[in-house]
Amino acid sequence: MKIYQVERPLVATNRIPGLEHRHLQVVRDGPVSAVAVDAVGCTPGDWVICVGSSAAREAAGSKEYPSDLTIVGIIDRWPPQETE
Amino acid sequence: MKIYQVERPLVATNRIPGLEHRHLQVVRDGPVSAVAVDAVGCTPGDWVICVGSSAAREAAGSKEYPSDLTIVGIIDRWPPQETE
Amino acid sequence: MKIYQVERPLVATNRIPGLEHRHLQVVRDGPVSAVAVDAVGCTPGDWVICVGSSAAREAAGSKEYPSDLTIVGIIDRWPPQETE
Amino acid sequence: MKIYQVERPLVATNRIPGLEHRHLQVVRDGPVSAVAVDAVGCTPGDWVICVGSSAAREAAGSKEYPSDLTIVGIIDRWPPQETE
Amino acid sequence: MKIYQVERPLVATNRIPGLEHRHLQVVRDGPVSAVAVDAVGCTPGDWVICVGSSAAREAAGSKEYPSDLTIVGIIDRWPPQETE
Repeated sequence: MKIYQVERPLVATNRIPGLEHRHLQVVRDGPVSAVAVDAVGCTPGDWVICVGSSAAREAAGSKEYPSDLTIVGIIDRWPPQETE
Repeated sequence: MKIYQVERPLVATNRIPGLEHRHLQVVRDGPVSAVAVDAVGCTPGDWVICVGSSAAREAAGSKEYPSDLTIVGIIDRWPPQETE
Repeated sequence: MKIYQVERPLVATNRIPGLEHRHLQVVRDGPVSAVAVDAVGCTPGDWVICVGSSAAREAAGSKEYPSDLTIVGIIDRWPPQETE
Repeated sequence: MKIYQVERPLVATNRIPGLEHRHLQVVRDGPVSAVAVDAVGCTPGDWVICVGSSAAREAAGSKEYPSDLTIVGIIDRWPPQETE
Repeated sequence: MKIYQVERPLVATNRIPGLEHRHLQVVRDGPVSAVAVDAVGCTPGDWVICVGSSAAREAAGSKEYPSDLTIVGIIDRWPPQETE
C-alpha cells in the first residue's frame, strides 16, 4: 500500500457503467498524482492508505469492480512526530 | 487509476485475435506515453481516466480481454481551475 | 519480492472492514516508503522481504484479503558482509 | 499497453517447462529493455504493442502461461509522421 | 519479463509457511535489486529471466505460491556479442 494525501474530488460524467457512482479522489504523493476510488469517505487534506494491484477491486467492494487504486483507511496522525 | 491525455489512435492491423477490433489510443502523461483500450469513445485532446492492472480486463468488457490499460471515463474539466 | 527495512507501525482507526485488525508497518527502501501488512511479526529496524502483486493477498492469509504488499520473512543478516 | 521496438531473440535453453518453446524477444523502449513472449511473429526492428500484468497470460494463449509481457500487435506505422 | 544477474542466495529463517523451503536469490539489474524465487536452480553470476506479476505464482509451481518474481530461465549468452 502507499500513503497519499487527498487533493480533490474528480468528476467524470462520461464513464463506463461498471464504475457506478462511486466517488473518485485525486490523491498525491509528492510529485506523483493518481486517482483512487474512495471506500472510506475522506475529505481533501486527509492522509490515506491506498491499495493497488488486484486487491483494489476487492477493497472497492466487489471482485468485479474496475479499480486499480482504492482508499482503504485514513491515517490517524501523519506525518509522524519525531518526539513521540 | 491515472490521468492521461489522449494523443492519437493507434493502428495495428497485425494483432492477436483476442484484441478484436477495439480502438486503441496512445495516451500521454507528461513524458510517459502508453496505449489504452478505449471503452468510452474519446477523441484526441480529451483528458481521461485509465485503469490498469487486472481491472483493465473487466473494464474493457470481459475478464478474458487482454488489456492492461483501459480508458474508463472522460474528465469533465481538467486541469482544475484554482479559482473554482 | 523486495527488501525493505521496517520503520514504524501505522495506525489507521478509520479503515474498511476487510483490513481487519492486522498490523500495518511503514517500510522503507532508500527514498521509497510503502505500507505493508505484517504477516510475520516484526519490529522497527528489521530487514524484511515483502511480496507484492496479487501474491500479497495469499501471503496475508486469504485470497480475499485486500493487501498489495505483505511482509513474508525477516532476513537473517542484512546487509550482507563482503568478508563472508 | 506499451510500445516497444523488437531488438533480438533471446535464447534460454535451461527454462521451466511451463515456458514451452515459445519465442522470447528482447524489446526496448528507450533505455528500458524487457523480455516479451512473441504471440504474433515479429522480427527485429518492428514496433510492437506489448501487454503486461495478468492480461499477458491470456494474450500468450492460456490463463496458465507464465508471461508478464506479451507482444500482441505490430504497429502499422511508427513513429507517426507529423505531416499525416 | 526482465533480465537480471543473480547476486547471492538470501536466507530468511523466519518466514511464512507458504514460502516453504524454496530458494530465494537476490538478483540485480543495474542499480535495482530484487528477490526472486529460484525455479530453475541457478548460481551467482548467472544471467536469468524473471517473471513478475501474477504469472510469478504459476511459474513457482502453484497458483497459491506467494511469489511476485520467479526465475524461469537461464540465458545462454549474455550480454549478446555484437559480432555475432
